Amino acid sequence: MVTHDMTVGIVGLGLIGGSLARRLASRGVRTIAWNHRDHPYAQAERDGIRCVASLHDLAQARPDAIVLCNPLVAMPTVLAQLADAIDPTATTLTDVGSVKGMVRDQVDAAGLGACYVGAHPMAGNERSGWSAADPSLYDDALWALTVRDDTTYERFLTVARLILDGAGNRMIVVDDDTHDRAAALISHMPHAVATALINELADDPDRNIAAALAAGSWRDMTRVALTDPDRTRAMIDEDAANVETLLRSMAGRLTAVADALRDGDADAMTRFFAQGQPFRDYKARPAANDAAVETRDLRIDPAGEWQAALLESARAGEHIIGLAGDRTVMRVQTRSAL
Amino acid sequence: MVTHDMTVGIVGLGLIGGSLARRLASRGVRTIAWNHRDHPYAQAERDGIRCVASLHDLAQARPDAIVLCNPLVAMPTVLAQLADAIDPTATTLTDVGSVKGMVRDQVDAAGLGACYVGAHPMAGNERSGWSAADPSLYDDALWALTVRDDTTYERFLTVARLILDGAGNRMIVVDDDTHDRAAALISHMPHAVATALINELADDPDRNIAAALAAGSWRDMTRVALTDPDRTRAMIDEDAANVETLLRSMAGRLTAVADALRDGDADAMTRFFAQGQPFRDYKARPAANDAAVETRDLRIDPAGEWQAALLESARAGEHIIGLAGDRTVMRVQTRSAL
Repeated sequence: MVTHDMTVGIVGLGLIGGSLARRLASRGVRTIAWNHRDHPYAQAERDGIRCVASLHDLAQARPDAIVLCNPLVAMPTVLAQLADAIDPTATTLTDVGSVKGMVRDQVDAAGLGACYVGAHPMAGNERSGWSAADPSLYDDALWALTVRDDTTYERFLTVARLILDGAGNRMIVVDDDTHDRAAALISHMPHAVATALINELADDPDRNIAAALAAGSWRDMTRVALTDPDRTRAMIDEDAANVETLLRSMAGRLTAVADALRDGDADAMTRFFAQGQPFRDYKARPAANDAAVETRDLRIDPAGEWQAALLESARAGEHIIGLAGDRTVMRVQTRSAL
Repeated sequence: MVTHDMTVGIVGLGLIGGSLARRLASRGVRTIAWNHRDHPYAQAERDGIRCVASLHDLAQARPDAIVLCNPLVAMPTVLAQLADAIDPTATTLTDVGSVKGMVRDQVDAAGLGACYVGAHPMAGNERSGWSAADPSLYDDALWALTVRDDTTYERFLTVARLILDGAGNRMIVVDDDTHDRAAALISHMPHAVATALINELADDPDRNIAAALAAGSWRDMTRVALTDPDRTRAMIDEDAANVETLLRSMAGRLTAVADALRDGDADAMTRFFAQGQPFRDYKARPAANDAAVETRDLRIDPAGEWQAALLESARAGEHIIGLAGDRTVMRVQTRSAL
C-alpha cells in the first residue's frame, strides 16, 4: 500500500489530531506526533505513534506531511517554530481548521505558504482532548481540500494520499473562498440563527411559558446555541464576511415571509415552501454511500488547470474516493448532488 | 380515584386521540370514542374503549368531556354535528389542537363557545393514525389549557381532572393569545426559519459543495424543514399574525449581527452571545422532574380572578401536577423558570 511509504507528523493530540494519529497508525502509516503537553505520549506510543519532544524534532524528522491539529490561537507560535525547522523540499504542510482563508493568511505570514495545502475533515463531536480521541471518528469522513492557483500538483497529491490512502476517507477539492462560503452556509450562519432563536425566547416576557411548551423542533433548532458561546463567536468572527452576507440574505427571506403572511399572499407562501424542495428531494433519496453509486475515473492534467477541474467536479456533487493507481486519475462518485 | 366517576368522549382515533383514549381506558376512565372510519373499533374495544357509530351517539352518551382529536379541516363538520346533539349542561368540550385562537373561533361559530375549554398536549411524534397510537405517548406530558374570562371554574375543573387525574399529566393554564404567541415562538416561527435555511442552500450556486460539508448542526437545524411542507404551511397560516411578528423580530436580530460583523463591533457581538445565557443556564440545570423539585399548594378562588392567578403561576414557570383533594387547591412545581 502506497501509504506505507509515507510519514505523517501530527501537531496536537486533541480530539481531531489524536483521532487522526491513531487512525493513521492503525492503518500502517508511519505517524509521529507532538503535543504541547506530554500526558498522551505513553498511550500514543502504545498505539504505534512515535512522540517527539519538540516541534523542531517533528520538522527535523522530515515527514511527507505535517498536519496542524493545534487550536487556532496557537497557530502563530506553532508556525513560527516550524518555519525555523521545516524542510520545505521534503514536507508539505496541511491542517484541519474549519475556516481556510484565515489559516492560509497565517501560513503565508510565517513564510510557509508555498508548502501549504488546506484541509478540513468533516469529523468531530461534542467532546475534546486525547481522552476522547478515537480512530472511528473518521469513519466514512469527507474532507475538503483547499488549493490555489500556485499550489503544485505534487503537494496536493501528498495531502490527497494522506486522506484517501492514509485515512481511508473521501474528499472534495475547492478554493479557500468557496470552502469558507459553504461552511458559513451550513454551519457558521446557522449557529448565529440558533443563537438569535434563544435570544428571542430569553427576551420574551412569557419565556417561561414558551420554555414549558418547547418540544423537539425547538430542541433541535437551538442545540448548537447551547454549546460554548465563545467558541461559536470565534468561529463566526473567523468567517465574518461570509456570515454577514448570509445573515442579511436570511433576514430578507424572513421579512419576505412576514410580508406574505401580512398580505395573505398565498402565491408567495407557495413559492417559499417550494423553493427548498430540491434539498428535501436530495435528503429523501436513498443514502448515496451504497454500492449502487456509479464510480467514474477523472483524469487530471497536472500541467493544466487541474484546480479548476477538481472544483468543477466538487460543484457537480462528486466526491473523490480514491486514486486509480495512476497518480493523475481520481476515482469519483456523485454523492451530494441536489 | 375521582376519575372513575368520569366519562370521556374522544372524537378521532388517530395518533393523538387514539393514544389518549387508550391511556384513559388503561387508567380506569370510562372512555367512549368515535372515528370517521370504524377500522380501529375492534382493537379499541379490546382496549376497553367503547366505540359508537356516530357523533350523535357520542354526544347522547352525555360524557363529562368530549375531546376533539379530529383534524382541523374536519372541525366545522364535527362541531356542526355535535352542536345538534350535545347537552351543554352535562358535557364540556375540549380539543388537542396546537393553535388555540382558531379553534375557539370555530367553536364559537358553532354556538358551543360557552362549554369549551381549550387544551394542547405536548405529545406527538413523526407517525400518525391508530396503528401508531400508544398510551406512553403521554408519559410525563405537559398540557396547556386555555381559558378566557367567561370560562366557568366548573368547566375548567372538568378538563383539569381529565388531564391531571385521567391522563396523569401536568398542565399550565393560559389564555388563547398567550398560548398561540408562545407556540409561534418555540415551534411555528422556527419551522419557517428552518425552511428559509434550506431555501438558502437550494439557491446557492455551490449548493452541492455546501451539501457535502453539511454535518450535525445543519441536520438538526433543518430537520423540521424536511417534513411535509403543506402541514408546516397550514400550521404557520393558522398562527399567521404571531409568526409574522416573530419573523420580523428575528430578521432584525440577524441584521443587527450582520451590522456588528461589518463594523467589527465587539461589544455588540458580546451582547448578542450573552443575551440568551438565561436559556443556556436553564437547560444546563439538572432535569427539573426529579424528586428535589419543591411542591407547593396554590389556592384558587373560583369566584375571583382565578384565570389571572393561574396565568401568573404559568408565567412563573410553575406546572400544575395535581389537585390537592380540595377542588380549589392545585399542587404546583416550578419546572420551566429561566
